[in-house]
Amino acid sequence: MGRVLVAGLGGFIGRNVPRFLLDRGFEVCGIGRSERPADLDAKVDWVRIDLFDHAAAAAQVKALRASHCLDLAWHVEHGKFWRAPGNLACAGAAINLLQAFAESGGKRFVGAGTCAEYDWSYGYLSENVTPRRPHTPFGRLKNALFEATMAHAETVGISAAWGRIFFLYGPRETETRLVPHVITSLLGGRSAKTSHGEQIRDFLHVEDVAGALAALTASEVGGAVNIASGRPVAVKAIIGEIGRQLGRMDLLELGAIPTQPGEPPLLVGDVRRLGDELGFRPRWTLEDGLAATIESYRTVQWG
Amino acid sequence: MGRVLVAGLGGFIGRNVPRFLLDRGFEVCGIGRSERPADLDAKVDWVRIDLFDHAAAAAQVKALRASHCLDLAWHVEHGKFWRAPGNLACAGAAINLLQAFAESGGKRFVGAGTCAEYDWSYGYLSENVTPRRPHTPFGRLKNALFEATMAHAETVGISAAWGRIFFLYGPRETETRLVPHVITSLLGGRSAKTSHGEQIRDFLHVEDVAGALAALTASEVGGAVNIASGRPVAVKAIIGEIGRQLGRMDLLELGAIPTQPGEPPLLVGDVRRLGDELGFRPRWTLEDGLAATIESYRTVQWG
Repeated sequence: MGRVLVAGLGGFIGRNVPRFLLDRGFEVCGIGRSERPADLDAKVDWVRIDLFDHAAAAAQVKALRASHCLDLAWHVEHGKFWRAPGNLACAGAAINLLQAFAESGGKRFVGAGTCAEYDWSYGYLSENVTPRRPHTPFGRLKNALFEATMAHAETVGISAAWGRIFFLYGPRETETRLVPHVITSLLGGRSAKTSHGEQIRDFLHVEDVAGALAALTASEVGGAVNIASGRPVAVKAIIGEIGRQLGRMDLLELGAIPTQPGEPPLLVGDVRRLGDELGFRPRWTLEDGLAATIESYRTVQWG
Repeated sequence: MGRVLVAGLGGFIGRNVPRFLLDRGFEVCGIGRSERPADLDAKVDWVRIDLFDHAAAAAQVKALRASHCLDLAWHVEHGKFWRAPGNLACAGAAINLLQAFAESGGKRFVGAGTCAEYDWSYGYLSENVTPRRPHTPFGRLKNALFEATMAHAETVGISAAWGRIFFLYGPRETETRLVPHVITSLLGGRSAKTSHGEQIRDFLHVEDVAGALAALTASEVGGAVNIASGRPVAVKAIIGEIGRQLGRMDLLELGAIPTQPGEPPLLVGDVRRLGDELGFRPRWTLEDGLAATIESYRTVQWG
């Protein structure tokens, strides 16, 4: 398949990506400013590159002469990314990476977008139908980067795609997120206070997100592709399933926390591009995915 | 008013800007990678900064501690900017400048946008009504930069505006552009081959463009503001006026060149924000503006 540079291998999604790229026959090279991640597959190369150091990063990226690039890097403090000043620097680093990659003869670039690029008032979010009108600085910067990426790809004649990632869950997610919060609360015997949970969302297991991004990288599909399940599920159903699996329904306090003002009742992705054009099917059911997620917190945190 | 950094002072618009900023009481500091422009007003400071050298530029910009920034820099080869690979690097440099300016305590940032950010099929282009669906990489990158600028300004709490520049003309424009092409052809006694000229456009004299951008910089008006005349004029009327003023109607060959496929019949800017919110009125009529433009080519090229 060629050599793929992957930025952001240390993240929640990134650390699940290498196996899927290796399975597809890629030579995988992770880049990032930290030391080589301890649990990184031995078959994956690692080159320390600080993407915020633009000139040095450009020279290093060019020297790697990769055919593909999957950019998952976005270094913003957990829980604050919707409105963090650092989002602009991340967009700048991404532009610099794209430019260097294209200049070095790269053939295909895949960026990580977000369902927050869409106007959420439409609910059902479809790549070529739903207007993009992001309501947060994070969504606006990702949308800007999508535009810049596609414009540059067209200009210099490289292939480019943009995976719009929806809601996700899975082992080892940051514990302030909803699913780990409920799991760790119940594992610890504490009550889990949540909103009413009537919101309908589109959740995909992080390994399926990673698999879909690998499939997108290996394909020639162009433009934006939703990385989603296409299956509407009420947040309270996820919370309930965790309670059921742990036998602690008594600890759930649905409705104890108010919903955010303006929170949309339904957000579901159109997955026809993902399914029909990429041929991707998720491997995890929600029940099995939540069971594996619970297991990861049991062993890591409480084992 | 404070100290305003101006990037792009050497350009067609940029070299007309300092006087208007000085008139409004700004301390003006030009930044750019070349030597100080020979004709730059002695009251304007000049600091050599290569905006493409991101780390060095950021440090230099921060040291200047300006209150305002007007970014007119966009270094792409003349006549090729609609689809030049360098557009991405310009967007990257602009993001780097915005970030450094905001980090140094800057209060207000004004960027230079383009009417090419809009979906031209709407014809009458209004800031808060007309969808943005740019059809060229240049328009898409400017639109991306608009989004990134507004998102970051909201995040870090600075004031920001975006002047969407329409069609312009005036003294010392690059000679490959329509107006100078017709003028220099007629001054040289050569025929001027043009399209049929039925297209209706919105032309503003470059000094009025510069004056409007200075007014926008000095104001607190936020978001996108069209920098336009609001007066529809057929391209053939401009060509005819040049022929009339030079007494060489005989050299005009309207229709000798085909129009571009898909060229829209009408593009006019809504100037209510410019007029009502900024209180800006153009100083030049088209007749006087063309006379001054003709004079500049007579003295520079043929005097």
